Amino acid sequence: MSFDRLQSLILARKNPSVAGLDPRLEYVPEDIRARCLKEYGATLRMAAEAVFAFNAGLLDALTDVVPAVKLQSAFYERLGVPGMDVLERTIRLARELGFYVIGDMKRGDVGSTAEAYSDAYLGAVEVEGNLWEPFPCDCLTVNAYLGSDGLKPFLRTCLERDRTVFALVKTSNPSSGELQDRALSDGPVYAAVGRLLEELGAGAEGEFGFTPLGAVAGATHPAQLADIRKTLQRTFLLVPGYGAQGGRAEDVACAFKEGGLGAIVNSSRGIICAWQKNGGDYRTAARDAAVAMREDLARFIKM
Amino acid sequence: MSFDRLQSLILARKNPSVAGLDPRLEYVPEDIRARCLKEYGATLRMAAEAVFAFNAGLLDALTDVVPAVKLQSAFYERLGVPGMDVLERTIRLARELGFYVIGDMKRGDVGSTAEAYSDAYLGAVEVEGNLWEPFPCDCLTVNAYLGSDGLKPFLRTCLERDRTVFALVKTSNPSSGELQDRALSDGPVYAAVGRLLEELGAGAEGEFGFTPLGAVAGATHPAQLADIRKTLQRTFLLVPGYGAQGGRAEDVACAFKEGGLGAIVNSSRGIICAWQKNGGDYRTAARDAAVAMREDLARFIKM
Repeated sequence: MSFDRLQSLILARKNPSVAGLDPRLEYVPEDIRARCLKEYGATLRMAAEAVFAFNAGLLDALTDVVPAVKLQSAFYERLGVPGMDVLERTIRLARELGFYVIGDMKRGDVGSTAEAYSDAYLGAVEVEGNLWEPFPCDCLTVNAYLGSDGLKPFLRTCLERDRTVFALVKTSNPSSGELQDRALSDGPVYAAVGRLLEELGAGAEGEFGFTPLGAVAGATHPAQLADIRKTLQRTFLLVPGYGAQGGRAEDVACAFKEGGLGAIVNSSRGIICAWQKNGGDYRTAARDAAVAMREDLARFIKM
Repeated sequence: MSFDRLQSLILARKNPSVAGLDPRLEYVPEDIRARCLKEYGATLRMAAEAVFAFNAGLLDALTDVVPAVKLQSAFYERLGVPGMDVLERTIRLARELGFYVIGDMKRGDVGSTAEAYSDAYLGAVEVEGNLWEPFPCDCLTVNAYLGSDGLKPFLRTCLERDRTVFALVKTSNPSSGELQDRALSDGPVYAAVGRLLEELGAGAEGEFGFTPLGAVAGATHPAQLADIRKTLQRTFLLVPGYGAQGGRAEDVACAFKEGGLGAIVNSSRGIICAWQKNGGDYRTAARDAAVAMREDLARFIKM
């Protein structure tokens, strides 16, 4: 239940990190691009298939190193319907290979619409008596601006199907403070969102003590990250912003509880674009970068 | 520029309303469902094609009555890749028929990712020298929780390509106040989001005085809606919550400026499900419901 499956995978790999598959065509090696261009022409289908071949190589290379992958939906939606097709195929392939799959969709809407999103990414859809799983992720990122009735449909699916979500609490971007750090009578806005998550999830804690409603808290704002870890003891954290965005291992260490529990750190470009920096085969470069990240984190996070 | 195109369409039709195409399979008449079931079996493709046939009939029936349609992405994503295919085809058909197309995606993310979303729904994507428009909407709903650097990529595309966005300010759902109504030192959270929109959009006002960054403000919270209209003079408003959600014409009148300018009221189920309530052909029922809504609004909004 709840985040137990993810926590167990992290402990088995001794690696609290997630590889972000946020692919742009310019990240894909030339030989893959040339092959797809020949087959599909200069189309969205070409770009999507190049991305899929790239993803498949990355997943194969990372399989025994990282416990989870995160797919940033925007980079697939940007490639239109073929991009969505490749999003689905990447989700299915990653799950077959044993990764915990986090769909980074940041969806959020009123109750009945949130339910439709929950069906799409965590649940199942009935069509004339048959059940289908459109984009079967283990976990989905969501936006809590609409309050509890926009979150409850996701929680319901999490409980029914052993799924999880991460809601945006304190994001990693420079301007996140404009709204999220503003003071309410009982603390900043991000803390109010965090409390709402713990209240809604109360009673649904798993073996490791976390509810199915996790929080996104960026490595680029270490003071707020430490505050969130301290005040939200039952909340699993997804920590973006390590590496390319400037967050260091010493900045993310405060996201973890005793024994390295309760958080996972994302790196996207640092892993998938490692070949552009370090040369060599992109799969080997990604694997080496993921191993280096694991070792970097291990200097500060003991598990 | 900015909301001029939408405002002109509204004035030409004397109808400040938008029909929400938020289709569920159970809203589609039996003859369409039976035909699609025979052709595609009980699959996501069947559901998606039934939805497309339904949408095509609705668009045809509404073409000279409503100036705009709003597509709730969740109901298409819920039908997987075939659903996204039908989302794209519906967008293209609606634009061909002259509707202003609002993609209700509520996207929001850090800068580089917001840019990818902006490319997907408002902009264009380059693939090896060719340009493609994946889901070519006129307008996109966005979530401003990440602050200005999550909004700027959308604004940039709006200015370059004569597009617009509506950012969530005060949503129509019952729990929207949990976060949006909380008090900051200078007013509620929703007002801070609204001010951010006007600040970012300043200087980009069109002929009617509105910037390309509009706001979502629900009919179900009339006091806040009136406050938003009063304080955000340069902001075009998208008003959900009329009809099925309980908002009445007298509740939404306060969203408009003199001459019926500056707002558009959404109705989804009230139009697309009218046949289930009133009987008859679904297209005729939808058209009659849209005309009745126009007349209902005209009692309070003079243009």
